[in-house]
Amino acid sequence: MSFRSFELDPALAADPIFDRHRHGKMAVTCTVPLSSRDDLSLAYTPGVARVCEAIAQDPSLAPDFTWTGNTVAVVTDGSAVLGLGNIGPKAAMPVMEGKAVLFKQFGGVDAVPICLDTQDVDQIVTIVTALAPSFGGINLEDISAPRCFEIERRLDEALDIPIFHDDQHGTAVVVLAALRNAVALLGRRLAGLRVVISGAGAAGVAITEMLMAAGIPGANIIVCDSTGILYAERPGLTAAKATLAASTNYSGRTGGIREALIGADVLIGVSGGTIAETALAGMVPGGIIFALANPTPEVLPHIASRYAAIVATGRSDFLNQINNVLAFPGIFRGALDARAITVTQRMKVAAADAIAEVVADDLRPDAIVPSALDPRVAPAVAGAVARAAERDGAARSFSVAL
Amino acid sequence: MSFRSFELDPALAADPIFDRHRHGKMAVTCTVPLSSRDDLSLAYTPGVARVCEAIAQDPSLAPDFTWTGNTVAVVTDGSAVLGLGNIGPKAAMPVMEGKAVLFKQFGGVDAVPICLDTQDVDQIVTIVTALAPSFGGINLEDISAPRCFEIERRLDEALDIPIFHDDQHGTAVVVLAALRNAVALLGRRLAGLRVVISGAGAAGVAITEMLMAAGIPGANIIVCDSTGILYAERPGLTAAKATLAASTNYSGRTGGIREALIGADVLIGVSGGTIAETALAGMVPGGIIFALANPTPEVLPHIASRYAAIVATGRSDFLNQINNVLAFPGIFRGALDARAITVTQRMKVAAADAIAEVVADDLRPDAIVPSALDPRVAPAVAGAVARAAERDGAARSFSVAL
Repeated sequence: MSFRSFELDPALAADPIFDRHRHGKMAVTCTVPLSSRDDLSLAYTPGVARVCEAIAQDPSLAPDFTWTGNTVAVVTDGSAVLGLGNIGPKAAMPVMEGKAVLFKQFGGVDAVPICLDTQDVDQIVTIVTALAPSFGGINLEDISAPRCFEIERRLDEALDIPIFHDDQHGTAVVVLAALRNAVALLGRRLAGLRVVISGAGAAGVAITEMLMAAGIPGANIIVCDSTGILYAERPGLTAAKATLAASTNYSGRTGGIREALIGADVLIGVSGGTIAETALAGMVPGGIIFALANPTPEVLPHIASRYAAIVATGRSDFLNQINNVLAFPGIFRGALDARAITVTQRMKVAAADAIAEVVADDLRPDAIVPSALDPRVAPAVAGAVARAAERDGAARSFSVAL
Repeated sequence: MSFRSFELDPALAADPIFDRHRHGKMAVTCTVPLSSRDDLSLAYTPGVARVCEAIAQDPSLAPDFTWTGNTVAVVTDGSAVLGLGNIGPKAAMPVMEGKAVLFKQFGGVDAVPICLDTQDVDQIVTIVTALAPSFGGINLEDISAPRCFEIERRLDEALDIPIFHDDQHGTAVVVLAALRNAVALLGRRLAGLRVVISGAGAAGVAITEMLMAAGIPGANIIVCDSTGILYAERPGLTAAKATLAASTNYSGRTGGIREALIGADVLIGVSGGTIAETALAGMVPGGIIFALANPTPEVLPHIASRYAAIVATGRSDFLNQINNVLAFPGIFRGALDARAITVTQRMKVAAADAIAEVVADDLRPDAIVPSALDPRVAPAVAGAVARAAERDGAARSFSVAL
């Protein structure tokens, strides 16, 4: 319902993408009747006062008797939106609304986009901490590295609800799922792979940590940023990159992506740059290339497939789309169901395993992950995440069968 | 959709109020299709990037192409919730959800409850300022006086979207509407009334300002707080009360509510206390009593009607319910439709006039305001507010006929 309509620029009004976005992509609905005086006195004053008093006496009732038990804030500062960069909070909103409706569509989670008009780390931590009573979880989104690492760590320490930076962990979960299925197809083991990760931002850091948590030795991993291979003695490293350098590339290899790829079985691109075909030629034949930069992959599939047996990208118009939508709706569904106080590394690994298992029975080199629209994924991920939360002691309540 | 259900305390589960509140009272819905790959690529990546880029270049497009053009944050710090007092942000949520669903039901406004875990004025101003790109307006709610005055003033100065503290102005608007109709019934004029306002908190301050804006001279108004009449020389007044004292009670009357009521035509109670019947006896017979404390009016209607011709309360189970729900949905509907940059005093007076006019044709002493469920109210208020915004130069865009 709106009592007037706007006059729009005809050029924008005729564009199907802008037409689809007119008035945004989401709305609030009321889930209780409001048509009689009795309805009003139950849902609002005076009846509501009894619910308020009960929660004041026992705050643990809040998730049962408010919408917060099913609600996630999708929080950004607009500093690293898609491949567009630092476009600010207002311009970030269409992405956050898109995320919010995917949360609902696939996970049944009520997500609220929060675009903050500040990029100061201390302020963001203060603000999100103060917002926490309004939500059951916080999905951080499109916040640039290295600020995202500190923001997530400090919020996770301050709050007893799940905090999850999707650009880091959502990407890492889906990459691990895809990699598990790819190595299964190739008859290999994770622990024996030599892996190069191109990109040391939010996704690159989280993927590296995730692969190590899943059993790939840091000795077998090399990470590159835009100036080349990370190695322990490289001058001018940020704290996050120094940590990466110290836990990977034990042989101290130096150089660029070309040197990094010599003898590699796996290339995971999360850089936003491009990688020359001649550099790929140094890889061990029959391996794996995930070129995840969006919208332009580091290397296009038809070229990558000359050097690898299994190829994936982040794009919906190529086969093997590695997309976070496979992860975040189910991860928060499971975390909310378990009333998780945090998201542990084992909850993320469990999510990756669950995604991989959905396609285990009909695994093919061009179908190593489920479709983004596969309705089996989110429930499988949710169950696995909730059970892992219980095992890790991160669940406040839990009632489904283990 | 939820993949599990909680086990609730059987005593709470059997209570109809708690049953009505289970899982809260609201949800998020998606307003665009999401069932195919094409849908995903229009609503999310890669299509969404075009909309982000357009807004980055022209931020004025945001209200057209995101949900923010129709969205209001209902912000509280939980410091003054209903008559319950300082119960904190988690316990305030059921009230804020109730408000949010009334916004939708009556005004078609998508409202998001934001319960803040801080009661520091500077922090609240910083936080709401940072949240502003996410919303088309800010409804402040249940924030205690005198902090509410400074918070509203600073936010209104900082932001170019409407800021409206409902406990102040929503109450004042509906009181003015009721008073207009009551004096019409009595054949009186506003300017000739002697008015006593019992209560100098958020509502008392705003009602006093509103009545003066509507033409009642400050000389004819006396305001009381819990220690008695406000007068200019009274020691220890807060800044807000000192301003009230300076602009009212020109004769410098002193004493308590009993002394204040001597010779009064109108009593407006917004105090939360009680007023003795013997004090009412000092009023001029045939006047007006609005006893708006909730849930217990300052004086019950059957007693008040011994001393006044027209009686109203805030309760739905008595006649003449003066309830903010008559005001806030239409006020924000009109402010959003006009893309108002603030809410002026004339927009509030226009809202009051519109509410009064809805029942002008069938005015009776026991029906001086419309029912809270009357569907004519919000559209009438919205139109009047939008036209007043235009006249005041507070509207950024406007397309309905004036």
